[in-house]
Amino acid sequence: MTDLEAKKNQFHQYVKSLQNEITAELFKADAKLSLEEDLWERKDHKGNPGGGGITRAFTGDVIENAGVNTSLVFGAIDPAFAGKLGGTGDEMWAAGISLIIHPKNPRVPTIHANFRMIHAGEKFWFGGGADLTPYYPHEEDFRYFHSTWKNALTPYGCYEKMKKECDQYFMNTHRNNEMRGIGGFFFDHFNTQDLENDIAMIKNISSYFIPSYFPLVEKRKDEKYDSEDEDFQLHRHGRYVEFNLLHDRGTMFGLRTNGRTDSILISLPARAKFSYKYKPKTGSVHEKMMEYYFPREWN
Amino acid sequence: MTDLEAKKNQFHQYVKSLQNEITAELFKADAKLSLEEDLWERKDHKGNPGGGGITRAFTGDVIENAGVNTSLVFGAIDPAFAGKLGGTGDEMWAAGISLIIHPKNPRVPTIHANFRMIHAGEKFWFGGGADLTPYYPHEEDFRYFHSTWKNALTPYGCYEKMKKECDQYFMNTHRNNEMRGIGGFFFDHFNTQDLENDIAMIKNISSYFIPSYFPLVEKRKDEKYDSEDEDFQLHRHGRYVEFNLLHDRGTMFGLRTNGRTDSILISLPARAKFSYKYKPKTGSVHEKMMEYYFPREWN
Repeated sequence: MTDLEAKKNQFHQYVKSLQNEITAELFKADAKLSLEEDLWERKDHKGNPGGGGITRAFTGDVIENAGVNTSLVFGAIDPAFAGKLGGTGDEMWAAGISLIIHPKNPRVPTIHANFRMIHAGEKFWFGGGADLTPYYPHEEDFRYFHSTWKNALTPYGCYEKMKKECDQYFMNTHRNNEMRGIGGFFFDHFNTQDLENDIAMIKNISSYFIPSYFPLVEKRKDEKYDSEDEDFQLHRHGRYVEFNLLHDRGTMFGLRTNGRTDSILISLPARAKFSYKYKPKTGSVHEKMMEYYFPREWN
Repeated sequence: MTDLEAKKNQFHQYVKSLQNEITAELFKADAKLSLEEDLWERKDHKGNPGGGGITRAFTGDVIENAGVNTSLVFGAIDPAFAGKLGGTGDEMWAAGISLIIHPKNPRVPTIHANFRMIHAGEKFWFGGGADLTPYYPHEEDFRYFHSTWKNALTPYGCYEKMKKECDQYFMNTHRNNEMRGIGGFFFDHFNTQDLENDIAMIKNISSYFIPSYFPLVEKRKDEKYDSEDEDFQLHRHGRYVEFNLLHDRGTMFGLRTNGRTDSILISLPARAKFSYKYKPKTGSVHEKMMEYYFPREWN
């Protein structure tokens, strides 16, 4: 095994260990959680073995639905697609973790995160991020989430850039540029030309995921809520569905490259509502919440 | 007014009269129906007046949500878009009706239909169709729907072609080519080079819409249903959302040309569910219903 192969393998093992850690946190957060695990394989563009993945689908009492997936993709790629990917050559390698957690209680926010490494021809790079979608204006929680990621990213000098990229990315342009949630951080095509250093950085950054989110679940999971909270949450789930199916590059990439549909669409919330010209009640906390779905400075 | 202008105006008036007829049928079907009507205007690509529309959003007891919309679009178009449209020149004119009816009772099918006329440069053409999405295997109702459209289209010699185009169009390619519903008929870029004749044909065909659907509402609206029927319906609503946001050309066209989002997404069902690897119960009527979501001969 070359040094490069060893490092790629190390990254793949790392995302699988992170998958296990997050799985353990989910079970701690929800005593009634059940897990369905699927191991799947894929063929590459030429029909040769091309990796596969571990899909973990959760349903429970605190967690309405969640997916914590890892995958390893390698081999020949469609030449028409190679250019779009941004690498060189007609082969690629990628490993990553992608996860989504939709709690049942509208006072607990939804979280999405992913971390991936891609190697194509002469190039390798990293991508990922985490973004929060709350449904209730607990501003102290939003500050906690953003400050955690500021702490994670500031040592690398990339907090401002990655925070801004997240605001721009998770945007429903067809809904007056409303964001899907309140942002977080997002990066793509990242590398410093020092692979060992970059892997260490992604491992370090992603280690902030559990502390950025699970304390909020613990804090809010038993908070009382009413039917108006739930109605607002379900309409925001509707917007979440709109973003994922209309705009999300990861979803498009997966479906257009004939990925495993059930693993890709595990990101959708279990329940969603859609109403013509939906608006929360005037003067409600949910109307207040709407103000947070636009970019702002947090720190 | 030239003869061509007069005919275009005649078609626009016709779709508005059909909108009124369908509105009246909805009120007959649902004593608790309420209507929100919005008149909206649009600018063309150069910022000049470019038409607008009448959006009618319904919510009720029998009808959970429905939209019956007409629009008139004219003026300059984005040159980058002109080629895709399939006409000539950098101006266009279009008038049409588009409607969706999502009943609450899972024993009553959802219906979608639209009829439009487009004029671009030297060319004019028609498009449209109707497709049924039932959630319960009332095969006699499906036969009724398909035979109504066979009767409407056979005199024009286009039943087989348009039935097949519908099967191909409303297909969730990312879900093993499952159809959104059970089809109907679909056509685009249709003309016989005889405008008067074509308008008469579209008027005649679209007059079959009310008899193709409303008798099914009347027949089934008081039928008892259980929570399993509803759970299946809501998961099929999820697939409906997936089709409309991932594949529907009309939705893409509307959103990418900066159309009125609330009018476009009125097509989405009020409630939807998404579950990892969703399947109806083994041996259930809903498992039976799944078999109908693939192309078959009806007549």
